[in-house]
Amino acid sequence: MTDIDHPKQVDSIIVNSSQLLTMTESGAIPGGAVAVQDGVVIETGKTEDLLRIYPECPDIIDAENQLVMPGFVDCHTHLVFAGERSGEMEMRLKGASYLEILKSGGGIHSTVRATRDASAEELFNLGMERINRMARNGTTTVEIKSGYGLDEETELKMLKVARKLSAEHPLDVIVTYLGAHTVPTETDRKEYVRWLTGSSLETFSEYAEFFDVFCEEGAFSLEETKLLLDAAANAGFRLKVHAGQFNDLGAAGLAASSGAISADHLENIGDDDLDLMAEAGTVAVLLPGVPFFLQSPDYPDARRFIERGIPVALATDFNPGSCPSYSMQMMIALGVFYCGLTADEAVAAATLNAAKAIDREDQTGSLEPGKKADIIILDVKSAGELPYYFGTNLVTKTIKDGVLI
Amino acid sequence: MTDIDHPKQVDSIIVNSSQLLTMTESGAIPGGAVAVQDGVVIETGKTEDLLRIYPECPDIIDAENQLVMPGFVDCHTHLVFAGERSGEMEMRLKGASYLEILKSGGGIHSTVRATRDASAEELFNLGMERINRMARNGTTTVEIKSGYGLDEETELKMLKVARKLSAEHPLDVIVTYLGAHTVPTETDRKEYVRWLTGSSLETFSEYAEFFDVFCEEGAFSLEETKLLLDAAANAGFRLKVHAGQFNDLGAAGLAASSGAISADHLENIGDDDLDLMAEAGTVAVLLPGVPFFLQSPDYPDARRFIERGIPVALATDFNPGSCPSYSMQMMIALGVFYCGLTADEAVAAATLNAAKAIDREDQTGSLEPGKKADIIILDVKSAGELPYYFGTNLVTKTIKDGVLI
Repeated sequence: MTDIDHPKQVDSIIVNSSQLLTMTESGAIPGGAVAVQDGVVIETGKTEDLLRIYPECPDIIDAENQLVMPGFVDCHTHLVFAGERSGEMEMRLKGASYLEILKSGGGIHSTVRATRDASAEELFNLGMERINRMARNGTTTVEIKSGYGLDEETELKMLKVARKLSAEHPLDVIVTYLGAHTVPTETDRKEYVRWLTGSSLETFSEYAEFFDVFCEEGAFSLEETKLLLDAAANAGFRLKVHAGQFNDLGAAGLAASSGAISADHLENIGDDDLDLMAEAGTVAVLLPGVPFFLQSPDYPDARRFIERGIPVALATDFNPGSCPSYSMQMMIALGVFYCGLTADEAVAAATLNAAKAIDREDQTGSLEPGKKADIIILDVKSAGELPYYFGTNLVTKTIKDGVLI
Repeated sequence: MTDIDHPKQVDSIIVNSSQLLTMTESGAIPGGAVAVQDGVVIETGKTEDLLRIYPECPDIIDAENQLVMPGFVDCHTHLVFAGERSGEMEMRLKGASYLEILKSGGGIHSTVRATRDASAEELFNLGMERINRMARNGTTTVEIKSGYGLDEETELKMLKVARKLSAEHPLDVIVTYLGAHTVPTETDRKEYVRWLTGSSLETFSEYAEFFDVFCEEGAFSLEETKLLLDAAANAGFRLKVHAGQFNDLGAAGLAASSGAISADHLENIGDDDLDLMAEAGTVAVLLPGVPFFLQSPDYPDARRFIERGIPVALATDFNPGSCPSYSMQMMIALGVFYCGLTADEAVAAATLNAAKAIDREDQTGSLEPGKKADIIILDVKSAGELPYYFGTNLVTKTIKDGVLI
C-alpha cells in the first residue's frame, strides 16, 4: 500500500469481510476492506490498514464476516419485452422443442406481438421491475438487447426504453440492437435482411452501442450473418453474435474474424472456431441457464475455452422463452456444476470477464483504484460457497457507484 | 361462506393476493384473502367478502397482488451438523463419485468427525442460522434428522439440539432419529446393528418421533434395514426409509410393507415396489436437489408415482455433502423441469403432501379453517411462475402461526 498516494478522506469503507475478492492480482484478501470516494474505489487492503489510514471516515460499513466482491455484470439479457410465456414452458414440458415452438409462430414471435402492442411506458415499468430484481440479486451492470420489435417503430421503442432505464436506474445499462433476432412472420426474408443492412442502421446506431445477430437455423444463416455484421461494422457498431446455441453454423469463427467483442451461447462449436476466437481475443459468453431451463443436456464446455486462453463470461440471457432467471448466482452454480468452471473461474466469469464482453473492464468487474465502487456483500465465506448454497439469493447488500441500493 | 359460523373478530386478514392457493377443494381463489386468529386460519375467501365480514379487523396485510399460499414444509433435512465440505464438491467435480468419497472416509464420515467434536451450543447456533435462512426462503415447518453422530453421545446431542431448535425457533421442527445413516468407521457392522436395534432405541424414542434408515450400498442392506425397522416399530417409532437413491435394493417396497409413512429419494425403484407403495399409501419424498448437485442425470420420475395415486412430496435433503440448498423454491423448479411434475403438482408436493410425509397434514400444508396460519407471500402471480423465475428467492413475507417472521 506504500505506493498509493492516499487522499485525505474517503466517503466510506467496507470492512471486516470474510474475504475481499478483488479480481485483480491482489486476489482474495482475508478480512479485506475497500475504501470508496465519489462512487469510485480508492484502495483495497486489510481492514486494520484502511481504518488506520482513514481514521475519520464517516461511513464504516461492517460486512460482518461476509464475502465482499465486485457486483455482477450480466452481459447478455433481453430484459425489455411484454407478454407472458409460462404457458409455453408447459408446452415444452409436454414435449415440444424450442425450435418447433418457434416455427409454429410461438416463441420469439409471440413476444414480438406483445411487445409491439405495449406502450413505451408499459415496457419501461416492466423493465424497472426486472432491473430492481436483478439488483437485489447482486447485478450492478446489465446489457439489454432489443429484438422483439423486428420493425423500425418497435425496435426504436425498445432501444429508447433501454436508454431511459439507463438514465433513470442506478444500474449501468449497456444497449445492444438486435433487429437480427429472427425474421418477422409478415416479412420476406431477403427484404428483411435488406432493411436490416440498409439506412435503418444509422438511426439505430444513435441508440445502441452493440449490434448482435442470432445465427441459427430458423433465424439467420452464416451468410446472412456475415452481411449483417459487415453492414453494422460500417455503421460504427461494435459486434456480438449468438453462435452455436442449437447448431454449429460456424458463427463463432465468423464472430472472431469479424472482430466481434463476444460470441455468445457456444454449446456447439468446432475446434477451428475456438482457435479463431483465441487468436482474436473474442470473449466467450456462456449462458447455462438456457440448457437448464430447456432441459437440454448440452451445456457449453468451459474448459475448451479456458485451455486456449479465451476469456469466459457468464450471463443470464434473461428472456421470457428460454431463461427467465434474474440470478447471476444461479448462473455461477450452473457454470460450476455443468460447464466445468471452478468456483474462482465462475466468479471471474460473472464479473471481470463479463465486463470485458461489453467493453467495460476499465470501469467495473474488479475492485481496484479508479474503477466504479460496484460492490456486493454475500452471506457466505468464500467463492466456493457461492455455487454450494445454490438456488437462493445470498446477496445481503448491493452497492452501485458507492451507494447502497 | 354461508355455512361458516363467523367469529366476531379476527387478528389479521391477508388481502389482495394475485391468487390464494388454498391447496383444498376451493383451489386457487383469484384475489383471495385469508383471515387469521390466534395463529390459526379462520376462513378463506374473496378479499371483498372477508373485509365485509370482518370490518373492524385491526391488521390488514396487503399482499399487493402477489401469490399467497401455505408455507413450505421441508420434510427431509439433515440440518444439524458441523464441518465444511465445499472442498469435497471440488473433488467430485474433478471426477470422484459420491460413493467413492464415502468409501475413502470422506462424505458422511468427515461430517461425523466434525459433529462429534462440536459442542451442543455450536450445533445449535449453526442450526439457528440455517433455519433462519430456510424461513427467509419460505419454509414454515422442517423435519430434521440426526445421523452424524453414530454413537449414543453424539446422536443424543444432535436430537437434543433439534428439540431445542423446535422449542426456541418459531418454525415447527419435526425430529427423526437416523442412527442408521451409515456404519461408523471404528465399529464392526454387526455390533453396530445390534446397538441400533437394542435398548438404545428406548432412549432415542424420547427425543425423536420418526426412525429412518439409509438403505444403500455402503450403508445398510435390505436385510439389515428390515431388522432395524422392526426394532424401531416395536420401540414405538413411526418409520421412514432412504430408498433407491443410487441402487434399487428393494427398500421402497420394504418401507411400504413395514408401514413407513414415507420412502425418500426413489431415483431407482421397480414397478412392484411402486405398487406396494400405492397400496400402503406410503408418501414418495423426492429430493431433486441431490441429482442436481451431484451432476447425475438420474432424477426420480414423479409421473410413475402420480399415475398410481401415490402422494408425491418434495424436500431439500439439506445436508453438507449432496445438497446444501435451503430453497424449497429451487426444489419446485427441479421437480417441474426434471421430475415431470406440473407446477400445481410441485406446489402441492412442497406443502400438503410434504405435511403428509411427516404426519402433520392436520396442522399445516393447506389454508383451511383450523390449520396453522403458516402462510407465505411470493412476488409472482401464479404457481406456474414459481419454477419459471428459478434460482432466486421469490418469497417476500413468511408468516408462521399467524406472525410475520
